[in-house]
Amino acid sequence: MHWVLMANGPLALSPAIRQFISSAERLIGVDGGSRHLHALDRLPHLAVGDMDSIPADLLARYRDTGVELHLHPPKKDATDLELALELALERGAKRISILGGTGGRLDHTLGNLFLLARCLPGGIPACIMDQEQCIHLTDQTLTLDGAVGDTLSLLPATPEARGVSLTGLEYPLHDATLTFGTSWGMSNVFVENRVTVTIGSGRLFVFHLFRS
Amino acid sequence: MHWVLMANGPLALSPAIRQFISSAERLIGVDGGSRHLHALDRLPHLAVGDMDSIPADLLARYRDTGVELHLHPPKKDATDLELALELALERGAKRISILGGTGGRLDHTLGNLFLLARCLPGGIPACIMDQEQCIHLTDQTLTLDGAVGDTLSLLPATPEARGVSLTGLEYPLHDATLTFGTSWGMSNVFVENRVTVTIGSGRLFVFHLFRS
Repeated sequence: MHWVLMANGPLALSPAIRQFISSAERLIGVDGGSRHLHALDRLPHLAVGDMDSIPADLLARYRDTGVELHLHPPKKDATDLELALELALERGAKRISILGGTGGRLDHTLGNLFLLARCLPGGIPACIMDQEQCIHLTDQTLTLDGAVGDTLSLLPATPEARGVSLTGLEYPLHDATLTFGTSWGMSNVFVENRVTVTIGSGRLFVFHLFRS
Repeated sequence: MHWVLMANGPLALSPAIRQFISSAERLIGVDGGSRHLHALDRLPHLAVGDMDSIPADLLARYRDTGVELHLHPPKKDATDLELALELALERGAKRISILGGTGGRLDHTLGNLFLLARCLPGGIPACIMDQEQCIHLTDQTLTLDGAVGDTLSLLPATPEARGVSLTGLEYPLHDATLTFGTSWGMSNVFVENRVTVTIGSGRLFVFHLFRS
């Protein structure tokens, strides 16, 4: 089951983003991120957080209509998005996408990107998406469907990423090693509609930037 | 000697940023990042990059005035900023600050943050700064001077960061372990003007957000 988590960062509700939200099987409103769903006149299946940024009338509406609420105290050891991600994993999500996880404070964005690591032990595909890109953290083979001219950037999240192979790109790789803190994997270009990223050991952030 | 690298991301030339640039002992213009120096009517000591984003007349001026140029081909295995950072380290920089390294494409920003790792083996203090924050990557003790009310966020860059102690903050820590992919270290608050972050093993991204 595909879970979509709506976080509180800025998000342009483009046709592609609207369609993506429509395809979700479960929607979580993460505190103020529920506003994005409200703008689409959608109710979440669950609302999670300390509720310091959701409009009061929206929270009241959720209470009235029986949306499942998971309220947390403001002083806690995890962000609202981490709590929502934990909940999705506990409920058996088979795929997780996070919207509204970029574009705000940079420490929040980096923390959100690093949260993707929580999905790796269970092998749950997860990404952070906005109108410009989809970002994955992977330790195995990843297949990306895109358009010729899209951009792919790889950034190792571990000291090394070994056995990295790429197909469908302007600069293919075969069994390469990428090192943390180098920019060798930046700004590759889709030359086919389908791209594969394979990794033998380590972890890679994979940025798929949509051609505008 | 303190080197300041001017990258090509957006940068508000606030009084604090202007003063910071004035305090640099060596300035590198990283391709189009030279425009920030031009706006201040400053020449860099060196200009580095493939020069695909610097205005042609500015590059011509640099040639005329004898600015040391390091030109690279557009198709290369490293970003312009990585090449500039390498050069600063080769020339014996004792401290490196990067401006214009945030706020553009998110893969570029993440790549720039990860580049800070290049300064760790030599123990060279390095940060990425903009008008809102200063971001460090550290594997040892870091002392930060700021204002009461400033925000501090910690994000482990390694599977674990052990022996983490904090002073001068609303939520002090003593000999704690932080795990990659958790948000426990987010949004702490300065309660003194000087904060220390100590780490026993591993690496931490340290975000110091200035109170606005």
